[in-house]
Parts: sequence; C-alpha cells; structure tokens
Amino acid sequence: MAIITLTTDFGLKDHFVGAVKGTILSNLPEANIVDISHAIGPFNIQECAYILKNAYRSFPAGTVHIVGVDSEISPENEHIVVLVDGHHFVSANNGVISLITSEVKPEKVFEIQIPNVDSGSFPVLDIFTQVACHISRGGKLEVIGKPFQALKELKDFEPRILNEGRTISGNVIYIDNYGNVVTNIQRSLFEAYRSGRNFEMVARTTKLNTIHKSYNGIVNYDLDRQQRKGPGDALALFNSAGYIELAIYKSDLSSVGGASSLLGLNYRDTVTINFI
Amino acid sequence: MAIITLTTDFGLKDHFVGAVKGTILSNLPEANIVDISHAIGPFNIQECAYILKNAYRSFPAGTVHIVGVDSEISPENEHIVVLVDGHHFVSANNGVISLITSEVKPEKVFEIQIPNVDSGSFPVLDIFTQVACHISRGGKLEVIGKPFQALKELKDFEPRILNEGRTISGNVIYIDNYGNVVTNIQRSLFEAYRSGRNFEMVARTTKLNTIHKSYNGIVNYDLDRQQRKGPGDALALFNSAGYIELAIYKSDLSSVGGASSLLGLNYRDTVTINFI
Amino acid sequence: MAIITLTTDFGLKDHFVGAVKGTILSNLPEANIVDISHAIGPFNIQECAYILKNAYRSFPAGTVHIVGVDSEISPENEHIVVLVDGHHFVSANNGVISLITSEVKPEKVFEIQIPNVDSGSFPVLDIFTQVACHISRGGKLEVIGKPFQALKELKDFEPRILNEGRTISGNVIYIDNYGNVVTNIQRSLFEAYRSGRNFEMVARTTKLNTIHKSYNGIVNYDLDRQQRKGPGDALALFNSAGYIELAIYKSDLSSVGGASSLLGLNYRDTVTINFI
Repeated sequence: MAIITLTTDFGLKDHFVGAVKGTILSNLPEANIVDISHAIGPFNIQECAYILKNAYRSFPAGTVHIVGVDSEISPENEHIVVLVDGHHFVSANNGVISLITSEVKPEKVFEIQIPNVDSGSFPVLDIFTQVACHISRGGKLEVIGKPFQALKELKDFEPRILNEGRTISGNVIYIDNYGNVVTNIQRSLFEAYRSGRNFEMVARTTKLNTIHKSYNGIVNYDLDRQQRKGPGDALALFNSAGYIELAIYKSDLSSVGGASSLLGLNYRDTVTINFI
Repeated sequence: MAIITLTTDFGLKDHFVGAVKGTILSNLPEANIVDISHAIGPFNIQECAYILKNAYRSFPAGTVHIVGVDSEISPENEHIVVLVDGHHFVSANNGVISLITSEVKPEKVFEIQIPNVDSGSFPVLDIFTQVACHISRGGKLEVIGKPFQALKELKDFEPRILNEGRTISGNVIYIDNYGNVVTNIQRSLFEAYRSGRNFEMVARTTKLNTIHKSYNGIVNYDLDRQQRKGPGDALALFNSAGYIELAIYKSDLSSVGGASSLLGLNYRDTVTINFI
Repeated sequence: MAIITLTTDFGLKDHFVGAVKGTILSNLPEANIVDISHAIGPFNIQECAYILKNAYRSFPAGTVHIVGVDSEISPENEHIVVLVDGHHFVSANNGVISLITSEVKPEKVFEIQIPNVDSGSFPVLDIFTQVACHISRGGKLEVIGKPFQALKELKDFEPRILNEGRTISGNVIYIDNYGNVVTNIQRSLFEAYRSGRNFEMVARTTKLNTIHKSYNGIVNYDLDRQQRKGPGDALALFNSAGYIELAIYKSDLSSVGGASSLLGLNYRDTVTINFI
C-alpha cells in the first residue's frame, strides 16, 4: 500500500488537513496517509526538519513525504521533489531538504512543473498532492518536472570543537513534548572526542557528569526509594535520535515544569561539554 | 474503500474519538476513517459548518461525513441523513446542514429512526456510526429512516450591498491556525460588483487596495530584500476556499501574533469594501 | 485487517508518533493503526487507564493496544503483554493494566523478552511495535516472552458506602474536553443501593436530585424557551461509560467555563449521594 506522510504547520482545527487527505484519496483511493506532525511552528523550517528527519527513517523505502511548511512558490522558492535514501520528499526549495539530508546526499532533485495547474495560496492541496500520488503510482519524475541543480542550502547550528579538543560547545535545537531539551551534540561526535576522559556538561547553572542511555539510568534500583535519585532530578542522556538531551526525570510540563523551564534552557542556548 | 469522515467537538484527549473509530471498524472493518477536525468549539455550529464545507468537497463522491457537534436528539433536534452533491452527511438537525449546503440543494433528507436503539448521551457512538456504516455498505436510507421535510434553516451573516453597489459590507466568519482573518465576502461577489473600479478595503484601522492571489503576492521579487514588503506586512487575498482573507505575511501567531490580534479583528467584526 | 491502537503521552507535535507508525508499517504493511489518544498527561497512569478502558471495548476482538505511558523498562517495571477479553495490551508493568482490567480477569500475562534487542529510552518504538506486529500476524506469546505472575496492582479511588447504606461517597476521576466532571460512582452501584429512595447529590455547593440519561434531560421541551432550564444550568447524568457525571449544559470551556471550573470540582474531589 502506498504510504504518503504529511508534515505541516496547518494545525489540526482548520479544514486544511482534511482537504488535503480528501484530495489524495480522490486521486489514489488506496493511499495510506500518515500524519507525522501538523503542529510545526508557522514557517519554522528548523523545527520541521528536526521532526521529519527523526521520523522518516522509520518508514519503508518507497514512502512519499509531503512537507507543507513555507510552501508557496516564488522566484526564490521553487517546488521540488527530492529522492533520498529511497524516500521521496515533495517540498518547497526553502532549505528544509538540506537540513533533513545533512548526512545523506540526495539521489535526485527535480523542479516540479505541471502545465496548466495554477499554484495559488494552497500549493500542498493543488500541487503536492498531485505529485505525491503520481510518484506513489510509480510515475516518473520526468513527467512532472525537470532536473534541478539549485537545492537551497541552509545551515543549522553546528557544535564547535574548542580548546584543542577539550571542549564541545553545542546548542539547544529542540524542546519536546515533555519539556526535554535536545542539543545538536550527537553521540558519535561526543564519543569521537572523549578518548576515555571524564567530562563535565554545563548548561547554565546545571552541571552533570554522566550521560545515560535511558531516562531511568539515574535511578539506582539497589537503593531504597528514599535514597535514590528519581522524579524531579535532572539528567543527561543519549536520546533515541542519537543526540545528547537534558531531561527532568518523570516531570510534568503542565504542573511543575520540564527541563526547559526548570533549567532555564531555550532554543539556541549553549550547552558545553568540557573533557577533564 | 468506504471513506467515513469525522468532524466533532470531542477534542483529541478523551476516549470519544477512539471509541467511535473502534465501533466503526467493528461494523465495517474495511472503512477508511478520516479525521477532518475534532477541535470545533463546543456546540459551535458556525465553525463546524465553515470547516466541513471547505473540506468535504475534496473527498470523492460516496464519502459519508459524520457531524458530531450538538448531536443529542430532542423534539427540536432530530437525527438526519442528508445526501448532497454525492456526499452523505449524518448529523443532528441543528442547522449545520443548511450552512454547509447554502449553495447546493440537498437531494435527499431522511430522519433517522432505528428501532430498539436507545440514543443516550453519545449518539455519535450509538447511532451515527451505525448509519454511516449502513450507507457505506450501500444500504438504502429507507431502511434506517423516513423522508423528512423540516430541515432547520440557519442563516449565517451575509455581506450587504450598500450605497447603490458602491460598498460591500462583510463580516469576519473564521480565524484560522495562523491567525488569518477570513471574511464572508466571496471572490465571485466581489468581482460581480467591482466592474473594473478601484477599491479600498477597510478593517478597523487597516486599509488595503489590492487583493492578491497568494500570500506572497505582496512581495516584489524584483526589488532588493530590504526594499520589499515581506514578513510582518498586512495583506488581503482570495483564499483557497474562495473568500477574501486578511493576513500578516509569514507571521507566527504564538510569538508576534497574527492578523486577528495585530489588526484587532475578531469573529463578526465588519470588513468593508468601497469601490471608488 | 490487523488493528493496532496507540495510547501515549507523546503529544502530537514531536516525531515520536510518526516514527512509531512508520516502524509498524515497515513491519506489517497492512496494519490499520488507530490513535486512541496521545494527550495523556505525562506519566499519568490513572488518566491513561480511564481513557483506554472506555475506548478499547469498542474495538473488535483481536485488536492489539500499545500503551505508551511510563514504559521504560527497569527491575520494577517489566515489559508485558496481557490478553484480556480478546484484546492484547502491550505495556509496561506499571499498574495501568490492573486499572483497565479491574472488572475482568486477564487470561494471559507474559513478560516480554526479545533476545538481542536493546531497550533504550524509546521502548514503544524499539520493543512494543515489534511485539504488536508479532501478535497481529498471529504469532504466539511464547515466542516473545514467558508467563508472568507479578502483574502490578494499582488501586484507584473506590466509592465508599457509609451510614448503613444511606450514603455513597465518591470522587472525581476525570475531567473531559467539555470540562465535564466524571465521578467513580457507577450506575450499577447507585442502583444497587438506591432501593427506590429519593436522593440528594452534593458536590461542594452544588446540590442535585435528578440523574438524567442524556445531557438535554434537564430541558423540558413542553415549556417555552424562556421558562426552560437550558444552556448554563448544572446537571448530573449517567454518562455513556456508565459513570455519574456532572455537567453544565452546552457550556463552552474556553469562554464561560465548564462544570469543573464553574462548580469548583477538581480531580479527587468528593461527590456524595445521600439517599433520603
């Protein structure tokens, strides 16, 4: 069954998502439409890239991903289809693809050109659904466009290596549903520079010297409950997406707060690791 | 595959939506259930009609739409099925159908009467799912009800033509996920009265004299970025649903605000077009 | 078609839900994945149990339910599969199953043990999807685990019978999307103790002596509209899940408020019924 995913900043209240799904099903009745997220911040390319990058790899090759953020066509924002890693992305050329594919090279990049279709204010509905259905039916990219060379490059924050390899200086790139704070320091980078040394991670006033593999890594189950670390304690871990993340164990964002509010860490803030 | 859509004010947290989907799948395992919205304001018929009206037309003929807003049965609020435009709507007779079908005449209207089924406080679960599955299986309306003549008429705001056709006075009917302000002035009405004249649109203190076909219509890409209009500037456009809409270009509702908050425009407020 | 449901505290913004769905579809392309809720309060076992208990029964036997709340494995929180009532639940042994199955005895309880799979910080993705797909394909529980005896018991508030059966003292267990207040007093308990007597229900300063079968049960349609009870009036009803619930008729939580805010009733608060 052809899978088409949706990642947009449409929200879930308006008619936008329903209209897009109806149009896809009118074109390709057997399509299996999967929502990745419709809660991307408006026009927030970075957020869109982070979420889609960490979701698309779980889907089987052959999946088509519609990216509905900042998708109006303009002389500076073409409509494109990109084949990466067996997945097709239908998107505007606003840089989101370069962030998603920062570690893999696109195999094909096509500019979408469909004759006699007017792209108005809702190109996801008018254009992207047609392209996604065409690809899902096994159609060739040559039919709906032409090869394109000018894929827009957008650079996200990159961690910096300082003090002759003794310091990694990273940034907060995402705050999740639990208020957990995700940095751009990947486990592979951390391990590459660590060389068996101890370290201190500093994020504002929080200092940690262990990075766990799971959230409950901070709990010592050999101790009595009263003596253990537990709910409310800060920790760092390598999260499931491979990044270093700061969390408050079992915290409720809506009542006591999460790592972001309790540790005072916002998007772009610095997180530093000093090897000792 | 039989498509059944859901438009309700249930929200996405409680068990309501899950229970409805489980019941449909128990009755019709091959049903393709599509959420249009579960974030309609409680009992808000106007909002429900606006969203469903602009979504249902994208679905293929034969789709059954369950309308789960203000659906308790009473002597003044019968349960009905309406066939319009190849689509079936299963709803209460609370006026929502008259708002959705203001431009098309229903082909069939039936009152739902299922013997031995008690309609309690959750008729979408107990009644509407049964009716939707019956229709999706190709069942006749005669089996689950009888022809009904008393379809409730509800009038939405209508734009008024004033000053011998020199003024159109409309109202805000919806504020979307971006804070964009949708008026009830349709493009067709505007064009019918314009007769090639210039115009000034007035919405509180905002005055505009161009209506674009896309959001980035305000951007003059021939100019340098510093000299262009762009993010943060107000504009009017004919939106994808055919209405005149006021927007702030690329505005983020959660930080700086949207057209609604920045231009001070709320539901029912007046938007006037004066032809010059 | 194999149905797999999801009930989690992941929220709908992050990549979590999309990644889980992609993984399931990679393993079992014909899976029909249904969201029950992703808005459970973080680590809120009681809320999760209330919602899932009232949703799962609507699904056909053979459905597999993934429970993604507080699911990290630990010496005190094993991963388990439970067969109840023809439904399989894949969960952590955190007590949620005992709350869901308080009225039915599990037929099978297995501890999940999959060799060579590392359960990190995202066990729903790494473990639960594999188990759910295995069961949906008709696989035996013996292949992915072993019988387990230590199902964690968690007791929810239970209503107390006082004054020699003249009083039922219950508690608020849930507040829904409309602000309606659900108590733990089931209709069956109420009827068992009533014995034809009149009663007064007391919830803070609110006193009611009728329990309706639908929300509009308080409306006397024989009276003129001005003389009727209607929108804004408080009522009690037996809700569709079988519990006594307090509501404000047709109230809008986001503007005037709901029963919770207007009657001052929060989670755990006492609701008393005195038979007279």
